[in-house]
Amino acid sequence: MKIIHSPRHLGHSGHVELMNGRVVPAFEKPERVAMILKAIGERNLGPLVDPAAHGLDPILKVHDADYIHFLAQAWELWTQDGRDFPALPSFWRAPGMRYVEPENIDGKLGHFSFDAGCCIVAGTWDAVQAGADIALTGVDLVAGGEASAFALCRPPGHHAHQATMGGYCFVNNAAVAAQAFRDRGAARVAVLDVDYHHGNGTQAIFYDRSDVLVCTIHADPLQEFPYFLGFADETGAGEGEGFNANYPLRWGTDYSGWSAALDDACARIEACGADVVIVSLGVDTYKDDPISQFRLDSPDYLKIGLRIAKLAKPTLFVMEGGYAVEAIGINVANVLEGFEQG
Amino acid sequence: MKIIHSPRHLGHSGHVELMNGRVVPAFEKPERVAMILKAIGERNLGPLVDPAAHGLDPILKVHDADYIHFLAQAWELWTQDGRDFPALPSFWRAPGMRYVEPENIDGKLGHFSFDAGCCIVAGTWDAVQAGADIALTGVDLVAGGEASAFALCRPPGHHAHQATMGGYCFVNNAAVAAQAFRDRGAARVAVLDVDYHHGNGTQAIFYDRSDVLVCTIHADPLQEFPYFLGFADETGAGEGEGFNANYPLRWGTDYSGWSAALDDACARIEACGADVVIVSLGVDTYKDDPISQFRLDSPDYLKIGLRIAKLAKPTLFVMEGGYAVEAIGINVANVLEGFEQG
Ligand SMILES: [Zn+2]
Ligand SMILES: [Zn+2]
Repeated sequence: MKIIHSPRHLGHSGHVELMNGRVVPAFEKPERVAMILKAIGERNLGPLVDPAAHGLDPILKVHDADYIHFLAQAWELWTQDGRDFPALPSFWRAPGMRYVEPENIDGKLGHFSFDAGCCIVAGTWDAVQAGADIALTGVDLVAGGEASAFALCRPPGHHAHQATMGGYCFVNNAAVAAQAFRDRGAARVAVLDVDYHHGNGTQAIFYDRSDVLVCTIHADPLQEFPYFLGFADETGAGEGEGFNANYPLRWGTDYSGWSAALDDACARIEACGADVVIVSLGVDTYKDDPISQFRLDSPDYLKIGLRIAKLAKPTLFVMEGGYAVEAIGINVANVLEGFEQG
Repeated sequence: MKIIHSPRHLGHSGHVELMNGRVVPAFEKPERVAMILKAIGERNLGPLVDPAAHGLDPILKVHDADYIHFLAQAWELWTQDGRDFPALPSFWRAPGMRYVEPENIDGKLGHFSFDAGCCIVAGTWDAVQAGADIALTGVDLVAGGEASAFALCRPPGHHAHQATMGGYCFVNNAAVAAQAFRDRGAARVAVLDVDYHHGNGTQAIFYDRSDVLVCTIHADPLQEFPYFLGFADETGAGEGEGFNANYPLRWGTDYSGWSAALDDACARIEACGADVVIVSLGVDTYKDDPISQFRLDSPDYLKIGLRIAKLAKPTLFVMEGGYAVEAIGINVANVLEGFEQG
């Protein structure tokens, strides 16, 4: 399986997040990719390939132009008054407040975000663009006939809405890829989000569409970030009714409980007749993940790969979360290896 | 003029806020009240009187019960896992997310707040209750025949919505007071908010009501917190249409520009036939305020007091913002002295 990677993710480093009442180094850090590359090398997975530039057009098909313009300008605006440290938003909207873009950068940060954990530094926008190119190059490979590919995106993307960053995510790489598959002729695309956290951005982007099925297996939003989306009764709207499936699971869920949701999601994907599957691959379901509360163990990730392979569809893996740095490489490589064995 | 004060505000101390990408000691601090008391003493304003306990019922008339229950429990929930440091929310809602109260305290903090500056410490809830009692005791005095009173509330209140804290505000003291005046027989109450920041909470609470006119003079939300409310076209809804008046003014506004808005607001208050006026008294319009961008000078606050006195209505002053600690006492005392001279 070809693995698309770029060192440009390294520009998104030194960033911070507000967690537990304190500003701390972000759990989402460059070492995550280093550990994945190490495991891939050890298992002889790959080869690694470079992304091709795709420009902004495919991004603008799923994100608002104002938002992308903001992301492209944010660091310059933040630093033009002499600030040389990471940018975080610090306020947002109460229910009933209005959706108007403020004039200054502090206001814009609040306008376009939904947490104080999505931090912008000098290299963020370049890394984000590289991430989208990685996903789009994965689409090129799979649409061009490869059975599968792994887009090693960083930062992740599944929390990013049409015009809102959050949860370490800026551009929704999986959503950009899903749209690109549609534009290259796939009649229906399925997104299977196995990250510990709800894929709120992907859900939101495709919520009223029947051409992209979104299935996401995640911690119950009553207990876990992103908290305010990801409930079981969110099944799509309008044309999209029936094309969104959420599997919220309680803290402490192990593979037996988790895999039942996976089986159900896979059955939906088969039933909808998707031409291609995008896997939003987070491995923060791991038992020792520092910010998560599921109990999957490393061998379980082999089984996940095997189960997804049984769908027997062209498959693009897109990297999302996973913060147990010591284990992230093993767990990701296990998914890929399980898939190749399947 | 009687000045209602309680030392219980001192319990709300040691709190922090996320500002400019960093967690810093909050600009809203106990010294603010100390400086006001000092200036009041030097000018022989007063006497100081203690608040009487009024319980939660008058608060629950303008705030949601779930929210008040949260405020009362928040510190206990935050600390029960061993945390002994100030509580801050760190995430919120993207547009389209749902309004569901999470189970755990980290989720509840995000659910009930609109910034990462409204910080809860051990003594916050006691101080907040004392602040509401201070405002309600002011209502008792004015409804009982006093021409005026000054409710020296801290923390402030005007940013707090029915179920959302923010901008250093937890319970909306001015709104609680306005409702209490109504319940004591006033047919119509006018709230005149002269704080630098928009009185978004007060506006939201009374937006569809004609019995409480809300006039607020503040920095343009395109430039300034709370950013997403306070525009000139927000004039009330339904029965409340015409009973909300916003005066957004650009950064750098001095007294000549500011006082034109005050004159217009006073004309509205006269026209609506209010029985009583509540002044949400913030002095962060001051030229040297550390977080604000207007250019009022200390003598201007005398003129504000004089102008409000010309309304010749029973008047309750309720303390809101003002963060230039060295000048806050002078500026507040000037308003009160101007009013008494008027
Ligand atoms: Zn995740
Ligand atoms: Zn203020």
